[in-house]
Amino acid sequence: MRLATRANGKPDGELLVVSVDGARCLAVGPQLPNLLAAMEDWASAQPQLEALAVRLAAGEGDPLDESALLAPMPRSWQWLDGSAFQTHADLMQVAFGTDPLKPERPLMYQGQSDRFLAPREDVEFLDEAGGIDFEGEFGVIVDAVPMGVTPAEAMQHIKLVVQINDWSLRAYAVPEMKTGFGFILAKPACSVAPFAVTPEALGEGWHDGRVCLDLAIDWNGERFGHANGREMAVGFHELVAHATTTRDLVAGTIIGSGTVANAGYAEVGSSCISERRAIEIIAGGKPETGFMRFGDTVRMEARTADGEAPFGVIDQKTVKRA
Amino acid sequence: MRLATRANGKPDGELLVVSVDGARCLAVGPQLPNLLAAMEDWASAQPQLEALAVRLAAGEGDPLDESALLAPMPRSWQWLDGSAFQTHADLMQVAFGTDPLKPERPLMYQGQSDRFLAPREDVEFLDEAGGIDFEGEFGVIVDAVPMGVTPAEAMQHIKLVVQINDWSLRAYAVPEMKTGFGFILAKPACSVAPFAVTPEALGEGWHDGRVCLDLAIDWNGERFGHANGREMAVGFHELVAHATTTRDLVAGTIIGSGTVANAGYAEVGSSCISERRAIEIIAGGKPETGFMRFGDTVRMEARTADGEAPFGVIDQKTVKRA
Repeated sequence: MRLATRANGKPDGELLVVSVDGARCLAVGPQLPNLLAAMEDWASAQPQLEALAVRLAAGEGDPLDESALLAPMPRSWQWLDGSAFQTHADLMQVAFGTDPLKPERPLMYQGQSDRFLAPREDVEFLDEAGGIDFEGEFGVIVDAVPMGVTPAEAMQHIKLVVQINDWSLRAYAVPEMKTGFGFILAKPACSVAPFAVTPEALGEGWHDGRVCLDLAIDWNGERFGHANGREMAVGFHELVAHATTTRDLVAGTIIGSGTVANAGYAEVGSSCISERRAIEIIAGGKPETGFMRFGDTVRMEARTADGEAPFGVIDQKTVKRA
Repeated sequence: MRLATRANGKPDGELLVVSVDGARCLAVGPQLPNLLAAMEDWASAQPQLEALAVRLAAGEGDPLDESALLAPMPRSWQWLDGSAFQTHADLMQVAFGTDPLKPERPLMYQGQSDRFLAPREDVEFLDEAGGIDFEGEFGVIVDAVPMGVTPAEAMQHIKLVVQINDWSLRAYAVPEMKTGFGFILAKPACSVAPFAVTPEALGEGWHDGRVCLDLAIDWNGERFGHANGREMAVGFHELVAHATTTRDLVAGTIIGSGTVANAGYAEVGSSCISERRAIEIIAGGKPETGFMRFGDTVRMEARTADGEAPFGVIDQKTVKRA
């Protein structure tokens, strides 16, 4: 099952169920006005949404206008982003010139959740000096999860999977990490691909709490990377369980994988500019690639072996805030 | 003007205006169902709320049942906690055994905002081994603030002031700081005193973006500290401006001061256990005071020179999650 959110003038938008080919949709209606409301009562929402998916499979539905879609959940009470790809962590340590991290627990920070940008809206920054970078990643959305669950229990709370661009401003990252307080300036609002998908709908693309799909990333129309999500050192269920160590997770919490990266980066490339710069430092002693400029575009699309794009496409341009 | 939120079975509760003596209240009604809704349209909400305050001043209103009060804003889209008291920062460096921080910008992390605990509800933890500590602090609530405001502009967006217990689990703090990613396990949900107060209503207690009031803290019925909020190295307006460096702030964002601490701690005591432990380390080489145990109580109440408590009282007990 595939869900999307259409702009309707309200902050949370209007919930849609979308056909498997992404061409048609049915509006869910006022009983489940938006995805956050559905997450808050998933046990009751799921069969209603599945019933609409059955009608879509039978050919019902209206043409889907992708240009009207927001992030599947345009805002949430909580966004916790992990950093579960060891290759990314290793390369970022080179990029940042920081000490190697060997933490006993998964890396995770709490990020801005009051707004997730629509997959095709322009992304505004005040200036280019922040070091504008993209980070291609996957995420999951959970229903309410009580404090202290096991990874196996956490797996049962993963209801939807999403694809994210975790916009990053690298000039602020190292000073903020050095305080130990984490990222505020370095992490403005993320963008999310249009479709939130149930794990089951990913088929073989969902295994052991990991999204086993290539994430194709194009910067200004050129292929930048196509790393696969399967190399997470810990799965999403383990990230969710970690997050519950001392807190209950509110329904609609989004948990991120961190930047998708593979040990074979020489072949598959990277999912953020900082990693490419680290690879350049390793190869030649200094970074060659600059960060994004105003007017640059970045496109992100995970694809199955069959060539399908279950999450749809993020395709955005950076612009200067007026 | 003083606002409170009464439990009504909904997550955001019901908004009340409260009389200056805290004894009576008027429900605001469905046009402004809760404080978050009021923050989203403060320009229109403020005169409506002030009109109710005038009626309360004239003797109208119902008796206020403090036991039914929730946090003034039981959940928000964003909670950004600073660490603006240099004495606290210096002592925590001793407590944690970490390097001195001399950051160029204010310290700030993003914390859990999906739930703020009611001022008198029991506070649940899974175990005592996390090192349960309280942190007495002040906070402000803003309306929508655009990216890149100056401190003077930020001051105009500070609509309400609150008093907070930022519950902390010290066993997780240092390992999380060392990752650079900030606090997840170390910072479960905060508690908030019952009344949110306009800066004007604090009179001389609000000066230069600081809450110039003593914050009396009692642990298990014994006075632990009564530090004054005036010694913030940067004011709330500067914290708000900092937070907008790369993001718009959603209406209802809460910005915290960090633990209230004074250079004269030998006389006024501390607002968290970790600081007392640091003072013990300085004096005798090792900490003497343990962290909180299940069944312990902590009471926090800021008082004016006249003996009034504008924010009311936080008075809670720690309990083991069943």
